[in-house]
Amino acid sequence: MKDGRIGIGVVGYGYWGPNLVRNFATVERAQVVSICDADTSRLTLGKRIYPSVVTTTRFLDLLNDSEIDAIAIATPVCTHYELALAALRAGKHVLVEKPVAQTSDQVRHLMDEAERRQLVLMVDHTFLYTPAVQKIRGLITSGALGEIYYYNSIRASLGLFQSDVNVIWDLAVHDFSILLNILDRTPAAVSATGTSHIAGTPENMAHIALFFQNNCIAHISVNWLSPVKIRQTLVGGSRKMVVYDDMEPTEKIKVYDKGITVNGSLEAAQQLKIGYRAGDMWAPHLPAKEALQTEVKHFIECIQTGAHPISGGITGLNVVEILEAASQSMAGQGKPIHLSQEKVVEPVL
Amino acid sequence: MKDGRIGIGVVGYGYWGPNLVRNFATVERAQVVSICDADTSRLTLGKRIYPSVVTTTRFLDLLNDSEIDAIAIATPVCTHYELALAALRAGKHVLVEKPVAQTSDQVRHLMDEAERRQLVLMVDHTFLYTPAVQKIRGLITSGALGEIYYYNSIRASLGLFQSDVNVIWDLAVHDFSILLNILDRTPAAVSATGTSHIAGTPENMAHIALFFQNNCIAHISVNWLSPVKIRQTLVGGSRKMVVYDDMEPTEKIKVYDKGITVNGSLEAAQQLKIGYRAGDMWAPHLPAKEALQTEVKHFIECIQTGAHPISGGITGLNVVEILEAASQSMAGQGKPIHLSQEKVVEPVL
Amino acid sequence: MKDGRIGIGVVGYGYWGPNLVRNFATVERAQVVSICDADTSRLTLGKRIYPSVVTTTRFLDLLNDSEIDAIAIATPVCTHYELALAALRAGKHVLVEKPVAQTSDQVRHLMDEAERRQLVLMVDHTFLYTPAVQKIRGLITSGALGEIYYYNSIRASLGLFQSDVNVIWDLAVHDFSILLNILDRTPAAVSATGTSHIAGTPENMAHIALFFQNNCIAHISVNWLSPVKIRQTLVGGSRKMVVYDDMEPTEKIKVYDKGITVNGSLEAAQQLKIGYRAGDMWAPHLPAKEALQTEVKHFIECIQTGAHPISGGITGLNVVEILEAASQSMAGQGKPIHLSQEKVVEPVL
Amino acid sequence: MKDGRIGIGVVGYGYWGPNLVRNFATVERAQVVSICDADTSRLTLGKRIYPSVVTTTRFLDLLNDSEIDAIAIATPVCTHYELALAALRAGKHVLVEKPVAQTSDQVRHLMDEAERRQLVLMVDHTFLYTPAVQKIRGLITSGALGEIYYYNSIRASLGLFQSDVNVIWDLAVHDFSILLNILDRTPAAVSATGTSHIAGTPENMAHIALFFQNNCIAHISVNWLSPVKIRQTLVGGSRKMVVYDDMEPTEKIKVYDKGITVNGSLEAAQQLKIGYRAGDMWAPHLPAKEALQTEVKHFIECIQTGAHPISGGITGLNVVEILEAASQSMAGQGKPIHLSQEKVVEPVL
Repeated sequence: MKDGRIGIGVVGYGYWGPNLVRNFATVERAQVVSICDADTSRLTLGKRIYPSVVTTTRFLDLLNDSEIDAIAIATPVCTHYELALAALRAGKHVLVEKPVAQTSDQVRHLMDEAERRQLVLMVDHTFLYTPAVQKIRGLITSGALGEIYYYNSIRASLGLFQSDVNVIWDLAVHDFSILLNILDRTPAAVSATGTSHIAGTPENMAHIALFFQNNCIAHISVNWLSPVKIRQTLVGGSRKMVVYDDMEPTEKIKVYDKGITVNGSLEAAQQLKIGYRAGDMWAPHLPAKEALQTEVKHFIECIQTGAHPISGGITGLNVVEILEAASQSMAGQGKPIHLSQEKVVEPVL
Repeated sequence: MKDGRIGIGVVGYGYWGPNLVRNFATVERAQVVSICDADTSRLTLGKRIYPSVVTTTRFLDLLNDSEIDAIAIATPVCTHYELALAALRAGKHVLVEKPVAQTSDQVRHLMDEAERRQLVLMVDHTFLYTPAVQKIRGLITSGALGEIYYYNSIRASLGLFQSDVNVIWDLAVHDFSILLNILDRTPAAVSATGTSHIAGTPENMAHIALFFQNNCIAHISVNWLSPVKIRQTLVGGSRKMVVYDDMEPTEKIKVYDKGITVNGSLEAAQQLKIGYRAGDMWAPHLPAKEALQTEVKHFIECIQTGAHPISGGITGLNVVEILEAASQSMAGQGKPIHLSQEKVVEPVL
Repeated sequence: MKDGRIGIGVVGYGYWGPNLVRNFATVERAQVVSICDADTSRLTLGKRIYPSVVTTTRFLDLLNDSEIDAIAIATPVCTHYELALAALRAGKHVLVEKPVAQTSDQVRHLMDEAERRQLVLMVDHTFLYTPAVQKIRGLITSGALGEIYYYNSIRASLGLFQSDVNVIWDLAVHDFSILLNILDRTPAAVSATGTSHIAGTPENMAHIALFFQNNCIAHISVNWLSPVKIRQTLVGGSRKMVVYDDMEPTEKIKVYDKGITVNGSLEAAQQLKIGYRAGDMWAPHLPAKEALQTEVKHFIECIQTGAHPISGGITGLNVVEILEAASQSMAGQGKPIHLSQEKVVEPVL
Repeated sequence: MKDGRIGIGVVGYGYWGPNLVRNFATVERAQVVSICDADTSRLTLGKRIYPSVVTTTRFLDLLNDSEIDAIAIATPVCTHYELALAALRAGKHVLVEKPVAQTSDQVRHLMDEAERRQLVLMVDHTFLYTPAVQKIRGLITSGALGEIYYYNSIRASLGLFQSDVNVIWDLAVHDFSILLNILDRTPAAVSATGTSHIAGTPENMAHIALFFQNNCIAHISVNWLSPVKIRQTLVGGSRKMVVYDDMEPTEKIKVYDKGITVNGSLEAAQQLKIGYRAGDMWAPHLPAKEALQTEVKHFIECIQTGAHPISGGITGLNVVEILEAASQSMAGQGKPIHLSQEKVVEPVL
């Protein structure tokens, strides 16, 4: 605790760390105590903006600082497990970048450790805190979209090529967390193909299909080598359909009263009469909130009330299991990998 | 011949037939002689606009009409083979809707029949006659795009659900013909998955990957159940990249001087330095020509000069072989199907 | 009458005439009898598509043809008055391109002539027959938009420079007819400025303000020298606002539940509290009907039933009076020109 | 000076002030010393992010602080003159929000004061520091666009209604500064009309025409009551034309190789043959720099080197003179107001 507020340590001050610090800095019940990074030039940058924050190159300083109650981890994926485990063992709550770890076994260890010590383990699946995803979830759970037929998503842009994870772990991970959240279920099987256009680097383009029950199918295309930035998702239901374009400054979500109606005998397919319904389009107003702001407040609240986070260990685990299955399928040129269906989906408020 | 012009008979006056008639009607060296359709109300419609054209419900009338030199077939796919074969045997040149037939064996029979009788067999792969596809082909063959890394395409809209073919045969067929044309090569393997959301009907949504040599990969998403119409293709090359959006009224093609540059040792992937190149965008002016107009003129020209059509039997055959492989893969839940590589690609002018 | 149908003669077969012929050709109760144009090459073109139609270079042939009941005039503006007057005097109903004539006096003569002979005089203000404009009119008359604050419109594209009329008479004329139709009132004053960038030619760029009662103001920008085609209209009301983009293939109309609310004392402006309301957007489904099809059917109906056309002489007269005032204001560098307010607006069904 | 860096005081920490502080905070040669605002809750907000900055409600504290070398003024327009004058008299360099003052007389006083004391007086016309405007300026000065025919601009959005200035002073001011910068000349006359839809408040919608020599005309529409945000500018030249859409995330500028060519005798307008040229479109890559970052660096540089700022007093004066003329014209319902042409345009690097 620092000045009666939850003391925060942030490790990793590269691309995402500054966003974490900026958002924690404006939460009344939190206080950023310390920033840790191996690169001192980044620390200098942080120090200039936040002169009162302690900077250090040693992670141990965060663990040993009694003013620090929680540690936010924004380092490369390959370091997540070790840092998160050390933080939990030092009695700190943990907010860790997605994906939470490199293997599902690691995630289970972290979950056990957090549970035994009664600490919050939360994964930074930021999209779950956007007004857009929350609106889509609401449209599905209220039944407005009807039965969900498909989820088609594209995430494409130029860069950033990463060396320790492939494009699925970097971009498709967002869709996996969104799907678990809005559908409240896990897929039965995964099939993925991918390509690397540069020898010796991870796949920079991939296409993943997730098969859910009842003919619901999700398809996700991810691409680090696109000339234009695309963030487009279609959700097709039996009653209505949604187009979610995250590149739109406003009107990110458009709900179409469109679809088909089937008449006639199902026995005789040739006699099926398919009607087309073309109705109005509706773009619900979405509040202009920064998702990360909502998320860090939720993290602080979970620490204070003991509530279970929306993106806790279970979500993190489910996501990593899909990532593992996708990688396995990609190695087998699209061979379907089946997932066990006994997963419990994170309780969502 | 009619009045010194190539006499044309059109069979099928539903969705596409009227476009064929309208375009043949404005070609100076051609003359639409007769329209055939089983539905007399459609014939009445045609007669009102073109009072001097003969209408009939019997295909035999077209075969027996000595004023008719060529027959354009715009009927359901399942009838193509029989009608085209009868037309060729009656000594008529043939322009047939895509895909040319239901099996590659049928296509080979048609090709043999046409060759033996020295008749033109042309397939209506309309996209090959668009200024947009011809520009992309030019950019690739000139080397402007560099080595081709990928081709990603989406064709989505609401309807029209068809009962005799699935969505791959209806929509992906366009991309197959475009790929053969712009790349001048056939794929080594095909993997496809698809779903039908209405029991007893063909797949209405599918995702197809075509694997070419040298890590060039094409991915095509087709969907009859989309609330919005999407016709978007990305072509990524090592030098430049193209976005082709067919829904744009003008500026359908945008060429991006964007890409990555790789420095450093290929042996040590971790040391790879990937640079990003973000240059200008350029939208070449495309003439506002209707593709079908260009195509019917090309058909007439091939009849008169004996030239080989851009979209002749070889293209038609290659396309149907990919369609067959895609269907086979889809039945095996994405199992890769390998194609023989000995295909000869259609000679393109 | 021809075969029990209203016989139509069309004079002028350049840009718009073919559209008239094509639309009349599909109306069951009408029959295009004859096409007249001074240019025989155009007549040849028409004859090829409609071999049974009589073509002539002499307008007199249309007047003398007893099979012709109505004449559609699609010639340059400077010829409208003379041709329409001759047609009425020959006992023919008249559909004339917008604007109906070059002066309001001419329009009054035509109205008198039509009334005396009990003939239909209709002006081809096509926009009034679009589903989009009819939807906007409905939103206003139902009170959904509240009090109308403003109408802002842009019509810009490259060409076609005309030699007999300026850009106001060519493009702003559309907005004038739309305004009269949706507001059911005429403006109190007009102010316009314009520029010609090519010596010796009419103004190719102009900005027009129309002042209505109650602080309702319309502003229209028209431009023949724009690199992009823009057809965009904003209608701002106290309750809701509309964006009408005619370049959108679908969703031409978007209704925004946005606006301001004023609280506080009107006496003390400084204390005014202005609140902003940002609600949902809604794009009503519009039927995909061709406006000209609706219009020619309406013309035939008026002939058969004696009904008053939506775009009859009164609309035509009001539009020409605004055009005259705009030209006068433009000559005076924006000097406001006041219009009498006693106009009767066309009765709209 | 503070720690060898230019010490900065910022007065006004409402909407724009935080942007100024954030940008000065990252400039190496500057140091934000103090923030002043009458509202202590805003100061608390600033203090939380920048704990080492001194906050005060008294402007006098900034004047008396010897560590402060320059004062940035981000307060309401009506306070600019008084605060800037006091700052200059206290020997501080001044960066003041646009417009620099309420009258041209006030601007002249400030210019005199700054010149006498050899202090930098810079106006925050941010747009002049955007890569987009700098690119347009380059295209014009290099002759690439040819002779400039027109500049048409729209700035529309919902809010923020201001009580001390009308929409021209708030939004059109941007276009005035851009025009002076890219054309290197001042207008000969101004005509403006405007409307207030809420009794007792300044005009919330206005249309302004600026007349330059050689038939070059600028037209600007500004609107606080639009349901959608529009920032669109067209610049038409005899050789090429530019569309500048500031709402585009990338590709803000598109250069069209389009235009008209005039053949034939200028004496006989009827015989003029106007040809249309429809060539390629080109979107030059623009660096992703924040304009305010460029601007504050330029301010620091001018202080250190004594260079004349791009947006110094002369630009500020020219802009205010146009604003005065526009207000005067608006009061006279669009009566053209002539401006003297002897202005010296700011020397641009």
